[in-house]
Amino acid sequence: MSKPVFLALGAGAGIGGSVGRKFAKEGYHSVLVRRSDGEGLNKLVDEIEKDGGQATGRLLNAVAENAIEDLVADIEKNIGPIETALFNLGAQIGNRSLENTALKTFALGWQMATFALFRLAKAVIPLMEKRGGGAILVTSATAAVRGNAGQHSHAAAMGGRRMLCQTLNAEYACKGIHVAHILVDGAVDAPDTLGKMLGEELFQKLREEKGMQNDGLLLPEKMAETYYHISRQHRSAWTHELDLRCFSDLAWWNHDNPF
Amino acid sequence: MSKPVFLALGAGAGIGGSVGRKFAKEGYHSVLVRRSDGEGLNKLVDEIEKDGGQATGRLLNAVAENAIEDLVADIEKNIGPIETALFNLGAQIGNRSLENTALKTFALGWQMATFALFRLAKAVIPLMEKRGGGAILVTSATAAVRGNAGQHSHAAAMGGRRMLCQTLNAEYACKGIHVAHILVDGAVDAPDTLGKMLGEELFQKLREEKGMQNDGLLLPEKMAETYYHISRQHRSAWTHELDLRCFSDLAWWNHDNPF
Amino acid sequence: MSKPVFLALGAGAGIGGSVGRKFAKEGYHSVLVRRSDGEGLNKLVDEIEKDGGQATGRLLNAVAENAIEDLVADIEKNIGPIETALFNLGAQIGNRSLENTALKTFALGWQMATFALFRLAKAVIPLMEKRGGGAILVTSATAAVRGNAGQHSHAAAMGGRRMLCQTLNAEYACKGIHVAHILVDGAVDAPDTLGKMLGEELFQKLREEKGMQNDGLLLPEKMAETYYHISRQHRSAWTHELDLRCFSDLAWWNHDNPF
Amino acid sequence: MSKPVFLALGAGAGIGGSVGRKFAKEGYHSVLVRRSDGEGLNKLVDEIEKDGGQATGRLLNAVAENAIEDLVADIEKNIGPIETALFNLGAQIGNRSLENTALKTFALGWQMATFALFRLAKAVIPLMEKRGGGAILVTSATAAVRGNAGQHSHAAAMGGRRMLCQTLNAEYACKGIHVAHILVDGAVDAPDTLGKMLGEELFQKLREEKGMQNDGLLLPEKMAETYYHISRQHRSAWTHELDLRCFSDLAWWNHDNPF
Repeated sequence: MSKPVFLALGAGAGIGGSVGRKFAKEGYHSVLVRRSDGEGLNKLVDEIEKDGGQATGRLLNAVAENAIEDLVADIEKNIGPIETALFNLGAQIGNRSLENTALKTFALGWQMATFALFRLAKAVIPLMEKRGGGAILVTSATAAVRGNAGQHSHAAAMGGRRMLCQTLNAEYACKGIHVAHILVDGAVDAPDTLGKMLGEELFQKLREEKGMQNDGLLLPEKMAETYYHISRQHRSAWTHELDLRCFSDLAWWNHDNPF
Repeated sequence: MSKPVFLALGAGAGIGGSVGRKFAKEGYHSVLVRRSDGEGLNKLVDEIEKDGGQATGRLLNAVAENAIEDLVADIEKNIGPIETALFNLGAQIGNRSLENTALKTFALGWQMATFALFRLAKAVIPLMEKRGGGAILVTSATAAVRGNAGQHSHAAAMGGRRMLCQTLNAEYACKGIHVAHILVDGAVDAPDTLGKMLGEELFQKLREEKGMQNDGLLLPEKMAETYYHISRQHRSAWTHELDLRCFSDLAWWNHDNPF
Repeated sequence: MSKPVFLALGAGAGIGGSVGRKFAKEGYHSVLVRRSDGEGLNKLVDEIEKDGGQATGRLLNAVAENAIEDLVADIEKNIGPIETALFNLGAQIGNRSLENTALKTFALGWQMATFALFRLAKAVIPLMEKRGGGAILVTSATAAVRGNAGQHSHAAAMGGRRMLCQTLNAEYACKGIHVAHILVDGAVDAPDTLGKMLGEELFQKLREEKGMQNDGLLLPEKMAETYYHISRQHRSAWTHELDLRCFSDLAWWNHDNPF
Repeated sequence: MSKPVFLALGAGAGIGGSVGRKFAKEGYHSVLVRRSDGEGLNKLVDEIEKDGGQATGRLLNAVAENAIEDLVADIEKNIGPIETALFNLGAQIGNRSLENTALKTFALGWQMATFALFRLAKAVIPLMEKRGGGAILVTSATAAVRGNAGQHSHAAAMGGRRMLCQTLNAEYACKGIHVAHILVDGAVDAPDTLGKMLGEELFQKLREEKGMQNDGLLLPEKMAETYYHISRQHRSAWTHELDLRCFSDLAWWNHDNPF
């Protein structure tokens, strides 16, 4: 008998890969999709299979026309019905002043962080609806709830993402489709995104200084436990929005300074 | 070897009792505290013990001077160190116009819903801090984030509760103490609170009409799964705030009407 | 001596026109820009001039490439430096199910409601910065803070708009540029948008039934008073976000129903 | 003919006094109430009268039993019907750890910042309702929307205050009573509160360093313009919540640091 299918759109070595691994461990066939680094992707699939799980890797440029739509159709036809989807595409490009944020950059942020989710929803939700249920887990960022200087592209895109999660939830919860907006409030211990952005030395320094036992960043394999839990909540007690942050970090709404 | 202790302040037949039952099942000694109905409390303790769990019941008027402080001291001395506490005192009194909300009523709402949490925190957090960790799960209500007409006492008290959760989290997360604000957005299938408020017939009607399979209200035993999960999150990925609602309910921020 | 210039992007017979009229009355040269209805636009300009004010009308398809950029350059060259700009483009298309919201529709909503503001900001803020100050008033909607069913396009676009206002404010407030996000929470008494959407009869009915004296909808000329006030606040006491709603309406966060 | 009455509860040399002065200038009889410093109060009243305004000063311990209730009754009997009331009692006590926040301190914060507003509302709203209208302006603080470490008493009290403003608005807006929650997000240039807390030297330093022209703190006389505007909004376009902050300050939701 075939396993339920879990789709991770944006499956690098951080959250996406770890959540994919968790779902595979729990009995799902994990379809792991990322834009580049086929080698890293193969390694991830191999590891999952070595642990007795089932996984498939795909390279995909999600913003290409029909890419997401074709992917969903292909999985549904050749692997099985998607029970749970993780939307994990990021659009963080670091801080850029208004002047240094090109129109194109701003538009690309929206294509990745907002429009791609809309496209995934359009492609997969009608199928879930016919089957009477499903879940879409959406990784989000602090920028979805407040806009800092330099975050024009990222915050506008994430703000749109959050509202889209609410409209999808408002329309589909009563039809048994669980949409969860998971607000990641802090730096994730992800070597191939944050690690690359910071450089190895600085990355390791950050890891150590904030935690007591090398756990000063959000650990993706621990986050995965909560992603999985949310997807398995009974429909009488669903969570739509939750935050995740490291114990050693201040919440985004807190400041060190006066009052 | 003694089990870790779980304290539920406000342990009726709804959330408090169900979460207590869950923690007992997972290996905790559940200390269940409620204001009245010793018979119901004994029944709950008996059931937990019959299932192989450990539980202790206490009747307590939480607003009485030193009641919470003495309770904590007594548990720590005679049962064991409190690892996780659930603050589950409610203060919903139904809708009352400003005119019909007496000063005393307003003050009592605050004593139950805000001040009692502050007292619990003052009593138990220093002990947790010495031990290097602990968790406080706080049940909250939609009234903590928006105030409807007639909810003067309840909303003011819950709004205070939510801010207090944030100040506690800001001060103690980095010391390993996890404070979670769990926003229950909807009616809970709790016979001895909602059931009594509505009457049996109306209560059963509500249960049925909103769900497809008698799950049209928040089911406490399902909510308990999430309470437990939150308490067990790894400290590198803690949730401070999340909502819980039935799939068939609109979120508090949604309306049926135009746009 | 030339008057300071006020630019209204989205200047129909509702908010945009009324705010334009107010600024003209207070001594600004109002540049009123809308997509269509040249006749209505001319009438508005004529009325302002008859009242002794100064105004210029322009028809513009704001989503066309370079349209906003050229407009700003043209005004600055031929009329004068823009001191205050109102971004008042809407993107409400009524409620549409996910299935009935085409990718193109979703993208157009973003182009109108989010991207056009980014383009206006890119065009005008650097000029304001050189001059040491300026103000951008942004009309927004409840959909910027919560997403109802059927509002996929509108809410995602407005959520992006709100975050963009925050990033602009975070980057430019300290440089003397005041960005205000004005959340219009209710139906506006605007014959050529709401009126057209509802039809004359229904529109008049709504006007009457909710108010005591034909003021049951948000009256644009009254809203204009607050738009103007915000633009004139002293920089030591700026408002970034405020709501506007009719006294007879419930706030978006309130419900009639239980608690 | 007698002037409309404006009541300022909490009328020191900062916001309360400045708003009182503004209302007097605009034709109100300002009743200025503060706990202590009769000399300062007399000076304020004298200045208002010298400028041709009308004012009355009162010393009052607002938390004393019946103090607020008797005050309202007395004003209504001897001065005139209160048209607009400003609730401006603060409860900021600086940062105090949980351990150093006594139960009494926490309770006093609530009495000042939450309960006193409830008492004022109970006393004055029924009178306003009979007269068909009125306004209550409520000064609030960032602590009403987020709780920082050490702010246990203040944040819990302010969070309650904010929810109370919402419940009052939800119940009374449709009856013509305008309740506004004014979130002051930053340090106010008030010599007798902030000035005393910081000491003269530090206070002057803060004033200068953050502003370009000695306007680096929120200037109460400028804030007063907005308080007055809000109270005069037409009922078809009321604001319930707005923020006020100095241009040189970051909004509470912004951080300097990464993203």
